[in-house]
Amino acid sequence: MPSTPTIPRDLSSWLDAHDADAFAQLNEFLRIPSVSARSEHNADTAAAAGWLHAALARIGFTVETLPTPGHPVVLAEWRKAGPNAPTILIYGHYDVQPAEPLELWTSPAFDPTVRDGKLFARGSVDDKGQLWAHVMALAAHLDVRGRLPVNVIVLAEGEEEVGSPNLAPFIEKHMIRLACDAVVISDSAMFAPGIPSILSSLRGLAYFEVTVRGPSGDLHSGMYGGAVVNPAMALARALATLHDAKGRIAIKGFYDKVKPFPAAVLKGMRALPHSDARFRKEIGVRALGGEAGKTTLEKLWTRPTCEINGLLSGYTGEGAKTVLPGEAMAKVSFRLVPDQRPEVIERLFKAHLMRQLPASSGVTVKVTALHGGRPWRADLDGPVFDAARIALRAAFGRAPVIVGEGGSIPVVGDFERILGAPVLLVGFGLPGENAHAPDEWIGVRNFRDGTRTMAMLYEEFAARHAAGA
Amino acid sequence: MPSTPTIPRDLSSWLDAHDADAFAQLNEFLRIPSVSARSEHNADTAAAAGWLHAALARIGFTVETLPTPGHPVVLAEWRKAGPNAPTILIYGHYDVQPAEPLELWTSPAFDPTVRDGKLFARGSVDDKGQLWAHVMALAAHLDVRGRLPVNVIVLAEGEEEVGSPNLAPFIEKHMIRLACDAVVISDSAMFAPGIPSILSSLRGLAYFEVTVRGPSGDLHSGMYGGAVVNPAMALARALATLHDAKGRIAIKGFYDKVKPFPAAVLKGMRALPHSDARFRKEIGVRALGGEAGKTTLEKLWTRPTCEINGLLSGYTGEGAKTVLPGEAMAKVSFRLVPDQRPEVIERLFKAHLMRQLPASSGVTVKVTALHGGRPWRADLDGPVFDAARIALRAAFGRAPVIVGEGGSIPVVGDFERILGAPVLLVGFGLPGENAHAPDEWIGVRNFRDGTRTMAMLYEEFAARHAAGA
Repeated sequence: MPSTPTIPRDLSSWLDAHDADAFAQLNEFLRIPSVSARSEHNADTAAAAGWLHAALARIGFTVETLPTPGHPVVLAEWRKAGPNAPTILIYGHYDVQPAEPLELWTSPAFDPTVRDGKLFARGSVDDKGQLWAHVMALAAHLDVRGRLPVNVIVLAEGEEEVGSPNLAPFIEKHMIRLACDAVVISDSAMFAPGIPSILSSLRGLAYFEVTVRGPSGDLHSGMYGGAVVNPAMALARALATLHDAKGRIAIKGFYDKVKPFPAAVLKGMRALPHSDARFRKEIGVRALGGEAGKTTLEKLWTRPTCEINGLLSGYTGEGAKTVLPGEAMAKVSFRLVPDQRPEVIERLFKAHLMRQLPASSGVTVKVTALHGGRPWRADLDGPVFDAARIALRAAFGRAPVIVGEGGSIPVVGDFERILGAPVLLVGFGLPGENAHAPDEWIGVRNFRDGTRTMAMLYEEFAARHAAGA
Repeated sequence: MPSTPTIPRDLSSWLDAHDADAFAQLNEFLRIPSVSARSEHNADTAAAAGWLHAALARIGFTVETLPTPGHPVVLAEWRKAGPNAPTILIYGHYDVQPAEPLELWTSPAFDPTVRDGKLFARGSVDDKGQLWAHVMALAAHLDVRGRLPVNVIVLAEGEEEVGSPNLAPFIEKHMIRLACDAVVISDSAMFAPGIPSILSSLRGLAYFEVTVRGPSGDLHSGMYGGAVVNPAMALARALATLHDAKGRIAIKGFYDKVKPFPAAVLKGMRALPHSDARFRKEIGVRALGGEAGKTTLEKLWTRPTCEINGLLSGYTGEGAKTVLPGEAMAKVSFRLVPDQRPEVIERLFKAHLMRQLPASSGVTVKVTALHGGRPWRADLDGPVFDAARIALRAAFGRAPVIVGEGGSIPVVGDFERILGAPVLLVGFGLPGENAHAPDEWIGVRNFRDGTRTMAMLYEEFAARHAAGA
C-alpha cells in the first residue's frame, strides 16, 4: 500500500483559518426553512436559492438561478481550468425535509446548535452541510491559488425532498452545458464513524397497487360466508406465493436479469464491521429474515426484494364487524438490482398474479404500477474513483470502504444516463444522523474532513485525468 | 299426505274484517323511529315500548314495561288458558336499525307506504311487522272467542339491533316467570315467495383480531427490505395456511366436533329451488368458492367457515410510500356449526398461528377474541314444530321447507338454554327485504298469511300438547 497521502498544506491551512467562518455561513444557510414540500415555505425556499447563488458568486463563480416548473436550479460555473482540464459537476440540493414534529427537536430545527461534536439543524446533513463542504473546498482553492485544477459546475436543486420531478428534464434540456467528466454527489452517509465510504450501488424500485375484487359489495360474512370467494383471503393466498421457503422470490423469470456483484465488492462488504445482533436490536426484532445463505449487508445492498408496503380490506376499526369484504388491496413493491428493469418486473408480477387468480377463481385482480426506477451500480474504475480513494485516505487516515444502499436515488441514474459521465457518491453523514427525522445532525469533524476530502479530490482528479488522457 | 288444513273460519273472518285496522295500527307503530343504536332516539325508543305496551293491554293482556340497563322489556301475559294448557313465549323486538342513508329511501323510512304489494318502512319486516302479526292473531282469538287456547307471554325487547346485551341476564333473572313449553320467534325470512319456511339452524361465531408485529416501528423498505421479516407478508403467509386446496379449514382439530346434519334435513335443502347462477348474479361474481363437493346451501347453512373480515397494515393511502410496516392486523372470524364451541376454536386457532409464526420467525403474533357465540340447531320434533307445519300449510297452501341461516342469533340459544324450551323460528320476511338497508319492506300478503298462521298455531299447539301430555 502506498504511503498515506496528505492534504496539500496550503489548502488545509486556509480551511483551518476559515473554520469559524465556514460554520457561521453554514448556520446562515441552515436558518432558512427551505421546506420544498410546503407551499407556505415557498418564499423561504426561494431565499435559500438566493443565498446560495450569492455565496457561489462571492467565491468567484458565474451563477444563474434558472427557473423550473417548481423550485429553481442554482447553476454555478467556473470554467477557467483550461481546455484540457476535466470538468466536474457537483450536485446537491438546497431544500430540506419538513421539520415536524417540532416538539421532538431538542433545539429548534432552524436554529443550528452544536452539542457533543454534532451540528443539529434541519438540513445539516441532508444536504446543505454536505453541499457547503464542497463550496468551502472550492473557496479554498480560489482564495489560496486563484484558480481551480478542474472546471467546475455546481448544480443545486430545490426539489430533491419532493422527488426531483423537474431535474431529469432540466438535465436533458441543458445537457450540452452540463457535459462533464464526472458527477460528484455528497448526499449520503459513511458506513460508520471514521470509515470513509464510497456508495457504489442503489437498488431500483417497481411499486404496485394490487386490488382483488370479489362480490360487487361487502356481504354479511354469516349469510354468505363459505360459498363466496373472500377477496381478502384470495389476496393473502396470492401474496403468500411471492416467496419460496428459502426467502427467494418465486415469480417466474424474476432473477433472470440479475447480474452478480463483482467478487471484490462482495468480499469488501463481508469484511465490513457489521453486527447482526446490533442490527436486530436497532430495529427491535428477535430474528432476521430474507434469503437464506446471504449476509445481511448482501441482502440489503445486492439482492432484489419483494415487500408488502400496505394492506387494506373490509372492517379495520375497533371490535367485530361480520363483513365479507367486496375487495382487498395490497401495495407491493420490489427493490431491483442490475440489470433488472421495472417494466419487465411489472410484466412478470402481473403474469404471476393472473396465474394465481385466474378469471375462474371467483375474484378479479388488477395491478397498477405506481412508481418505478432502475437500479444503479458504479464501475468504481476510472480517475474520479481513484481520486476519491486517495482524497478520502488523506482526510480520514484510512482507505474508504465500498458500501451499497438498499434504497433508490433516481437522479443518480439520470445523471449517468443523460450526461454519460460516471457518478461518484461520497457522503459524510453518519448512521443515526436523523436525515428525515427530528434532531438531524452532521458531525462537525465529518464536515471538516469532508471539506478537506473535496479540496484534494479536485486536484487528484485533474492529475489522474491528465495522466489517462 | 293429509288433506290440506284450513284456518278456522271465525278467526279468518275476524282477521279479514280487521285488516285495515291491523295495517293502520302497524303504521302507527312504524312511524315511531325507535332506533336503539342512537341515543338521540332514546325518547322514540321509549315511545315505541309505550305504544306496544298500550296495544297489548288493549287486547286483554296484563302488561309491564320492565327496565334493563338499556332499553326496557315489554312483558305481556295472558294466563287464563287453564293449568293443563301449555304456555307459549312469543319473542320480538320493537327497536329498529338506523335508517341512514336516508337519501336512498324511495319513500321516507318512517312514513309507511305500500307499493306493489309491499309495505315499505324501517322496521316493517325487522321486526315490528312480524311482531304485530302475532298481536293481531292474539287479538282475533280474544275478540272472537274471549280466550286463547294457550297461555301466552309476549316478550318484546328494545335492544335487538344493538346485540341484545341485556336480554340473557333478563331471561335468567325472570326464568321462573318466563317458564314455557315453546318459544316462537318471527324475525326471519321465508326461502322464497309462497314457500313457508321453518328456520332450523344458526351458525355460531368465533371472531378474532390477529396482530403480527415485526420491527418496533415502520422502516424504510429500501434501506431495510430484504433482511427484515415483513409482518404484513408474515401475516399473509399465515392466513394462506388456514384453508387447504379443497377449501377445507386446515387447522388441526377444527372439524373434530362437527356433528353431521340429519340426512333428511340435508335432503330437504338439496330439494330447495336454489340457483347458483342467480346467486352468482345477485352478488356479482363469476364463480363461487368454498368447500369442494358441497352445495351452496349446504356451505352456507351447515358447514363452518373461516373468513378474513378486515386487513390493515402499513401505507394504504393514494400512491406509493416505501414503508416496511412495523405491524399488520387481520380480523378473522369463524362460523361454527354444532357442536363446535367458540372457546375451543380460539385455542385451536391460536395454536395454529403460533406454529406458523413461532418466536424464531422474526415476528410475534397476538390473537384477541372479540366475539363468540354458539351454533344452534332445532330438533324439529315435538308439538310446536308439528303445529307449525300444519298452520303454515293452512295459511300458505303448501308444506313448509326447512332452511338454515348462515349468520348467528345468540338470543335463540339463550332462550333454549335458560328456559329449556324448544324454539320455533318461523318468519315471514322474503329475500330482498332490505332488513338493514334502505327501502325495507314486508309483503302485505305475507303479513296477512303470517297472522293467520299464528292464529292457527296456538290452537294446533294446544291440541298437540294435550295429546302428547
